[in-house]
Amino acid sequence: MPSAASKLAYVPFVSVDNMMQLIHRIGLEDMLKGIAAYIEEDFRRWEMFDKTPRVASHSAEGVIELMPTSDGEVYGFKYVNGHPKNTRDGLQTVTAFGLLANVHTGYPVLLSEMTLLTALRTAATSALVARYLAPKGADTMALIGNGAQSEFQALAMRAICGVTKLRLYDIDPAATRKLVRNLSGRGFDLTACASPEAAMEGAQIVTTCTADKQYATILTDNMVGTGIHINAIGGDCPGKTELHKDILLRADVFVEYPPQTRIEGEIQQMPGDFPVTEFWHVVTGAAPGRRDARQITLFDGVGFATEDFSALRYVRDQIEGTGLYQQLDMVADPDDPRDLFGMLQRARAAETVV
Amino acid sequence: MPSAASKLAYVPFVSVDNMMQLIHRIGLEDMLKGIAAYIEEDFRRWEMFDKTPRVASHSAEGVIELMPTSDGEVYGFKYVNGHPKNTRDGLQTVTAFGLLANVHTGYPVLLSEMTLLTALRTAATSALVARYLAPKGADTMALIGNGAQSEFQALAMRAICGVTKLRLYDIDPAATRKLVRNLSGRGFDLTACASPEAAMEGAQIVTTCTADKQYATILTDNMVGTGIHINAIGGDCPGKTELHKDILLRADVFVEYPPQTRIEGEIQQMPGDFPVTEFWHVVTGAAPGRRDARQITLFDGVGFATEDFSALRYVRDQIEGTGLYQQLDMVADPDDPRDLFGMLQRARAAETVV
Repeated sequence: MPSAASKLAYVPFVSVDNMMQLIHRIGLEDMLKGIAAYIEEDFRRWEMFDKTPRVASHSAEGVIELMPTSDGEVYGFKYVNGHPKNTRDGLQTVTAFGLLANVHTGYPVLLSEMTLLTALRTAATSALVARYLAPKGADTMALIGNGAQSEFQALAMRAICGVTKLRLYDIDPAATRKLVRNLSGRGFDLTACASPEAAMEGAQIVTTCTADKQYATILTDNMVGTGIHINAIGGDCPGKTELHKDILLRADVFVEYPPQTRIEGEIQQMPGDFPVTEFWHVVTGAAPGRRDARQITLFDGVGFATEDFSALRYVRDQIEGTGLYQQLDMVADPDDPRDLFGMLQRARAAETVV
Repeated sequence: MPSAASKLAYVPFVSVDNMMQLIHRIGLEDMLKGIAAYIEEDFRRWEMFDKTPRVASHSAEGVIELMPTSDGEVYGFKYVNGHPKNTRDGLQTVTAFGLLANVHTGYPVLLSEMTLLTALRTAATSALVARYLAPKGADTMALIGNGAQSEFQALAMRAICGVTKLRLYDIDPAATRKLVRNLSGRGFDLTACASPEAAMEGAQIVTTCTADKQYATILTDNMVGTGIHINAIGGDCPGKTELHKDILLRADVFVEYPPQTRIEGEIQQMPGDFPVTEFWHVVTGAAPGRRDARQITLFDGVGFATEDFSALRYVRDQIEGTGLYQQLDMVADPDDPRDLFGMLQRARAAETVV
C-alpha cells in the first residue's frame, strides 16, 4: 500500500481530452458560470494574494509567459504563449497549461491543460466584469474579432449577463462564418456585419478580441456612443492595443492589476498616472461600478494570474470522482527523504529483477 | 494519420521512474559528465541567454520558485520548491519539474521530472566549477551536510575532478551513516568525522550542502586554511547562509548570476558592491580562475536557470529512441486554429458515438 508520502508523489493531470469531457459533463455555460463565481470570490479576497506582473520572455514572433500567484495556502502558475503568426502555420496562437501546489509542502497537487481553460476563464472574467459594468438590460453585443476566443465570450455573456443578440465582425469573413456556424441553433440572434461600424449599431456591449501583435485601432472614437460597455481583451501585451486613445479619455477604465495592465493593456498608450479603477474594488463595494446610463465603461482586460488560479481551483474541485485525470509520476519520493541516491539505486535493483 | 500540428500537441514527459531508468542506462557518472559538458557549453554562450533572477513565492515554511531562461531558440523553465521542514514529515525538501519549449511557436517540447535531475545538475555544476578553481591535484574533499545532495556531489567531484577521498560530517550522524552505506564499495576512501573541524583536515575542497532555512555558520574563519576551494551550495535563499562573512573577505568569490546571488547566496551578508567574478568569464577565459596555490577560491553556488536549461537539453538529446517517456496530451490542437470551440463540440460528438 503506498504511504501518504508516496501518494503525494503522483500529480493528477487533466489532459486536453479530459478537459473537453469535463466541460461536456458539466455543460459549457454552467462551467463558465462556475468559473466566474470562483473568479469573483478570488477578486473579493484580492488582498490575500501574492501578486506580481507576469514574467515574459519576448521574441520576434511572440511571447512566453509565466503567471504565478498564491493565496497563502495554494500556489498556482500558468505557462502561456502568444504567437499571432502561429495561425498561419496551423497552430494555436495561445497554448497554456497550469499547476496548483500546496504552499506548506511545495508539492504539486494538480497539472492541467489550460488552452481550453484559459479560453473559459477569459470569457468568464469578461462576463463577470460586464455584469457589474454593462448598462442595465443590455442584450446586444458587438463582437469584433471572431477567432478562437469569440464563441466563449458569446456564451459567457449570455450565461452571466443575458446577452442574446450578437453583431459580428472580423477582418476575415471566414472567421465570422465559422462563428455563425458554431453558434447557430443555440438561441442567439446572430448578425454578420460588413464593418466594425455596422457591428456597433444598437450594441450596449462591445467586445474586441483580435489577435494581431501590433498597435491597431479596432475602435475609433466616433464609433463609441454614450452608455456603452467596452470589453477590450485583445490588447494584452506590450505593443498590442485595439482602441484609439481618445476612447480611453472619455471612458472610465477598469483593470485587473494596474502594474501589469499599464505594461500590456490599452492604457500602455497613456501616461503612467492615467486614472483607473481596480476591478476588485468594485466587487468588494469599495469603488462604484457603473454610475449612470450615459457613462462609457471600459474593461481593459489583459488576464491576470489570479483568474487562472480561480479556474484551476474550480477544476480541482470538479474532477474528484470523475476519473477525468491521469496520475503522473512527477515527484521523486524516497522513503527516507534524505536518501534520494538510495531510491535511485533501489530502482536499478528492481529493474534488474524484472 | 496525425498531422504535423497534431504531433506537436503531444509533449514528451519523463517521469521519475523513466529518469531513474535513463540514469542507469547512461551510467550516473557518465551522465554527470554529460550534463557538466552541456552546462559548460551554455556558460560559454552565456551572453545569448535571456536571464532573470528566479521568481520566488516565500511562505513561513519555504519557497516555491520559477526559473525561466531562453537562448533565443529554446525556452526553458523549472518549478522548484525548498521546504526544509519537509524532511521531518517524510517529504523531499526540494522537488522540481521542468519544461522546454520552442521559442518560435511557444509549443512545449519536453516536460520532465527534475527532483533527480536538479540533484544531478547541481552536482555537475559544482564539479565543473571545481575543475576550474580547485588546487591542482586535489583528491580530498570535506563534505559537510550529508543529505539528499551529498552522494551526487561526491560522484560528480570524482568523475570530473578526480576526488577520491571524502571526509564526512553531518549534524545528524544517521545522515553520515546513510552516505557511507550508499558509497561503500564504490572505490572512495570514506572517513566519517565527529566535527566539521575534523572533516576539514587535509581537504583541498570543502563542500557545504546543509539544508536549514536560516543564517547558519557551518564554516568559521579559523577552519579555512590557505589554498582551499570552497563549494558552498546550501546557502541558496534569502536568510539562508552557511559561511561566516570573514571567510568571504579572505576568498575570491565566484558566482553564477550576480543579481540572483546577491539576493540568495553567501554574499547576501555583504554590501551590494562586494566584488565577485562571474563564472562564465572564467569559462570563456575573460577572467582568471585560480591564480596561485595559496588563494582561497569560493563558489557561492545558488543554482541558476541556465543550468536547468542545460540539463533539460541533455535529457532531450538522450531520450530519443529510448522509449523512456510518455506522450502527454497537453496542447489543444484544433484542425483550424481559430476553431477551438469547434474542436470542443466535435469531442462531444465523438464521445456520444463511442
